[in-house]
Amino acid sequence: MPQLRLALNQIDSTVGDLAANAEAIVHWTRHAAEQGAHVVAFPEMMLTGYPVEDLALRSSFVEASRAALRALAVRLDEEGFGELPVVVGYLDRSEKAQPRYGQPAGAPQNAGAVLHRGAVVLTFAKHHLPNYGVFDEFRYFVPGDTMPVVRVHGVDIALAICEDLWQDGGRVPAARSAGAGLLVSINASPYEREKDDTRLELVRKRAQEAGCTTAYLAMIGGQDELVFDGDSIVVDKDGEVVARAPQFAEGCVVLDLDLPAASAEPASGGAAHGRVVDDGLRIDRVVLSEEPLPAYELEVSGGYADRLEDDEEVYSALVVGLRAYVAKNGFRSVLIGLSGGIDSALVAAIACDAVGAQNVYGVAMPSKYSSDHSKGDAAELARRTGLNFRTIPIEPMFDAYMGSLALTGLAEENLQARLRGTMLMALSNQEGQIVLAPGNKSELAVGYSTLYGDAVGAYGPIKDLYKTSVFRLARWRNRAAEERGQTPPIPENSISKPPSAELRPGQVDTDSLPDYDVLDRILELYVDRDQGKDAIVAAGFDAELVARTLRMVDTAEYKRRQYPPGTKISAKGFGKDRRLPITNRWRESPHQGG
Amino acid sequence: MPQLRLALNQIDSTVGDLAANAEAIVHWTRHAAEQGAHVVAFPEMMLTGYPVEDLALRSSFVEASRAALRALAVRLDEEGFGELPVVVGYLDRSEKAQPRYGQPAGAPQNAGAVLHRGAVVLTFAKHHLPNYGVFDEFRYFVPGDTMPVVRVHGVDIALAICEDLWQDGGRVPAARSAGAGLLVSINASPYEREKDDTRLELVRKRAQEAGCTTAYLAMIGGQDELVFDGDSIVVDKDGEVVARAPQFAEGCVVLDLDLPAASAEPASGGAAHGRVVDDGLRIDRVVLSEEPLPAYELEVSGGYADRLEDDEEVYSALVVGLRAYVAKNGFRSVLIGLSGGIDSALVAAIACDAVGAQNVYGVAMPSKYSSDHSKGDAAELARRTGLNFRTIPIEPMFDAYMGSLALTGLAEENLQARLRGTMLMALSNQEGQIVLAPGNKSELAVGYSTLYGDAVGAYGPIKDLYKTSVFRLARWRNRAAEERGQTPPIPENSISKPPSAELRPGQVDTDSLPDYDVLDRILELYVDRDQGKDAIVAAGFDAELVARTLRMVDTAEYKRRQYPPGTKISAKGFGKDRRLPITNRWRESPHQGG
Repeated sequence: MPQLRLALNQIDSTVGDLAANAEAIVHWTRHAAEQGAHVVAFPEMMLTGYPVEDLALRSSFVEASRAALRALAVRLDEEGFGELPVVVGYLDRSEKAQPRYGQPAGAPQNAGAVLHRGAVVLTFAKHHLPNYGVFDEFRYFVPGDTMPVVRVHGVDIALAICEDLWQDGGRVPAARSAGAGLLVSINASPYEREKDDTRLELVRKRAQEAGCTTAYLAMIGGQDELVFDGDSIVVDKDGEVVARAPQFAEGCVVLDLDLPAASAEPASGGAAHGRVVDDGLRIDRVVLSEEPLPAYELEVSGGYADRLEDDEEVYSALVVGLRAYVAKNGFRSVLIGLSGGIDSALVAAIACDAVGAQNVYGVAMPSKYSSDHSKGDAAELARRTGLNFRTIPIEPMFDAYMGSLALTGLAEENLQARLRGTMLMALSNQEGQIVLAPGNKSELAVGYSTLYGDAVGAYGPIKDLYKTSVFRLARWRNRAAEERGQTPPIPENSISKPPSAELRPGQVDTDSLPDYDVLDRILELYVDRDQGKDAIVAAGFDAELVARTLRMVDTAEYKRRQYPPGTKISAKGFGKDRRLPITNRWRESPHQGG
Repeated sequence: MPQLRLALNQIDSTVGDLAANAEAIVHWTRHAAEQGAHVVAFPEMMLTGYPVEDLALRSSFVEASRAALRALAVRLDEEGFGELPVVVGYLDRSEKAQPRYGQPAGAPQNAGAVLHRGAVVLTFAKHHLPNYGVFDEFRYFVPGDTMPVVRVHGVDIALAICEDLWQDGGRVPAARSAGAGLLVSINASPYEREKDDTRLELVRKRAQEAGCTTAYLAMIGGQDELVFDGDSIVVDKDGEVVARAPQFAEGCVVLDLDLPAASAEPASGGAAHGRVVDDGLRIDRVVLSEEPLPAYELEVSGGYADRLEDDEEVYSALVVGLRAYVAKNGFRSVLIGLSGGIDSALVAAIACDAVGAQNVYGVAMPSKYSSDHSKGDAAELARRTGLNFRTIPIEPMFDAYMGSLALTGLAEENLQARLRGTMLMALSNQEGQIVLAPGNKSELAVGYSTLYGDAVGAYGPIKDLYKTSVFRLARWRNRAAEERGQTPPIPENSISKPPSAELRPGQVDTDSLPDYDVLDRILELYVDRDQGKDAIVAAGFDAELVARTLRMVDTAEYKRRQYPPGTKISAKGFGKDRRLPITNRWRESPHQGG
């Protein structure tokens, strides 16, 4: 049987930064070559970053991506890697799609290419386009209609992109029809809790359907609100796992494979070039090298990394996401308002793990309602973690407003939160840190939060964590520190005391909210699982409590709609706000860079 | 030839408020019956409001819509309108779509129904789903696959929904295949500048393709960021306009039509029930009444409303959008920070026209950098319009912050804007008005704006207007007042003085920005038309100026990404923020209502 050494580069990419992404591809191709790889693969849209969103509709960016791809092929050859086939994701456009009402302008495609001997020898585009959850690909892309197969050292390698494996039909059965000896799927599949097992089962199933060894190459890192967790997987044609990469770690999986030989045309008994097979896909074959390699001893197995346990996995995702967000937006340091409570304490711990305590700035902003223990707990957090700490009381500002306005009740409570938000932004503007918002998902869902107040911030590290998970992760982080012989970062008192916003005397969260363990279970059914009131009551919750909770969520959503968080502009007059086209480092203007 | 009196109800609808929307349908059906109508139509998703967004994925809302439709049929019959066929848009689900990965949960459909004699006698779903611009319908809906035809008094009426007319193929040729005598399309087509002529040309073309008289019924009003401008159109089979409704006015177009008779089965020479015709659509025929009406004198022509000229059209869109936003979010009054400049003056004029000057609250918040003429211009605006006015200086708050923080430069400038934002929110929380943000599209595009400062507000009435349009509309509004013998609302000095943010001594916009007439033309090419740098320079602009402008836009977008305007929560952990499912008045909790 022919052999191949495959290098799967599970690495990060930055949307818009074509130059840096190309540089990373060269760097990791060199690494793969040094490992003796015969085929090298990079993730979906590696060259442009993922997701490019409205950049896909800007033809100057599409052309820049195409030009960067051609330049990359030349560069790899010049660096001495011309003989090594490189599979890489990029942004392209369909040459043959006719303009049609409702089709994305310029017919962009989520594409992949094979680079070899200084040239782009094969291109293809994602066939199945996801348009649910975090995906909007019908908006941005035209689907591909080929089944690409590249022959390398006598092995037919079928290629696919991400959703091509997730949906039934299309390239998986087409790979079988093509008689492929290996199926390689390049992906940018975002992290979700408990998704790893779904992925594993998917790849096992698809390998059996394709009838060949299947490699699922994942991205790692973070882009905007998305986290990519890695977890690349290789399984054989019987669905047995051959290799599995670690989560949340950048690196290269290198493994030797014994693979079936492609026969002469029609290849492997599979469909010939140009034939239309499953789902209308047309076979597109390119032969780079017919002859199998001389037999060699299988040396590299790719390894098998164990899954992280749940708390560590979620915590790692939060750290990786924050680290990428700070770096990709050109910041080095972060600013956090520290109340002494558990939310800001967990955010600070995550930030210290993401960017280092020396780059974390905490500021306590006590009001006359702040308790002594709160001030003490904030200082204790700083002491334990080593973050930079200062205290600025808000009483003078509060008194200035109250001298002009006769505020009471909620208006007075919200004022305190907004004075702190203004303080954080003033420090950020003056000193250049990026502000982190401490809100958790429970309080945001029920509206227990002040817009332009504690909601101020560029990034909300724990906005997708319910309060019960905040407690659990805080305890996990402290335990993990103990196990490593380090100081637990979060003061025990921040974990054990009753949660309070401290915006009026003696206030605690349970004045306004149900116990968090009940609240969070109801929220999960209502918000995450789209269950209705009757179904939630039927699940065993008190009808009155369910009604009250749902009313809070409805009202909070209602309030968010009354005060959308800011005024963005839309490209089309009178339209829905869509992101403006320019993201991160891709700029039309001549002065590029960070 | 058989005759029919058609009633097209160009009215507003509120997302989620099933009860009020049903009530409006009953009200306008009564009105149509009093006018002697034989068929009555309501807009796309009239019963649920449009767009429902994530509510489509909540099965309890889908079931509520279905139940409301059945109840509406019964109610109309009880009210004595059972004999009058009513076509109405609502939210349904596909009974036969098999669950499939990537398909919207519960297989929701953007549907229409014909109600008759207390029953739902025919249902259908939108066939072409738009997924561009403001539309996300692949995310939310499963397409319909029938060609519905209802026979009323011997006329075969083919039915379609909005995008079914915008895209080629599908229901337009299928209406011809079905031998329809009339094609009725129900729509919720959002306003865009200069769209009205596009619509007219579209309907003329489609009528000729369908080979029958075609009625295009539009919605009017506003929902969230969308404005619906009305402009319902009826054309005959030769493309000649028969009737056209006014823009921005709620009402009913009633018109008599002479239409070709349907013959006995196979109807009109058209395809029989169950036959599959164009684009895979299966003919779905229902016969309500075979016999043509006794001949009568054609009495009602539907009328022809002239188009508004451009400035009035845009101004009307802004007024209608703001009025709907305030009302649908349960507010009666609005709050605006008045600087004396043209942006806040135009916003105030729009607000007075939308909700009445007695419901408009203006507050001047001068700093030590505010000029005397600014204070005077704000007061003069209040005098001219009659809005409620007060002055609250921000110096005490400014001094309190500067006493604790050593702010300079941009941090000091932004502080002033944020103190005003906090002031407005404090007043809003205390008194219950909704805050309007005064930003225009030029300054938002280049980042000449303070997040959590002048960007504070629930709704930005002029966020889609470039600064040159702000000037033009201000002059138009004053001129219109003069023509009506009223006091022009906007002080001449606010229009004629050089724009300034007044955040430091002697500051004017042109310190930082190009002249607005040049800036706006570059922005339009870059932001609205997705042109790249080279193309903009080729259009005749100075290369250095283009580069500087593009850099400002890129940096502003970059900053918006560093500081997304707020922290929303997502339904799925670690995912893109999508709106929470509950909008406006549809609530799971028992206490419904405003």
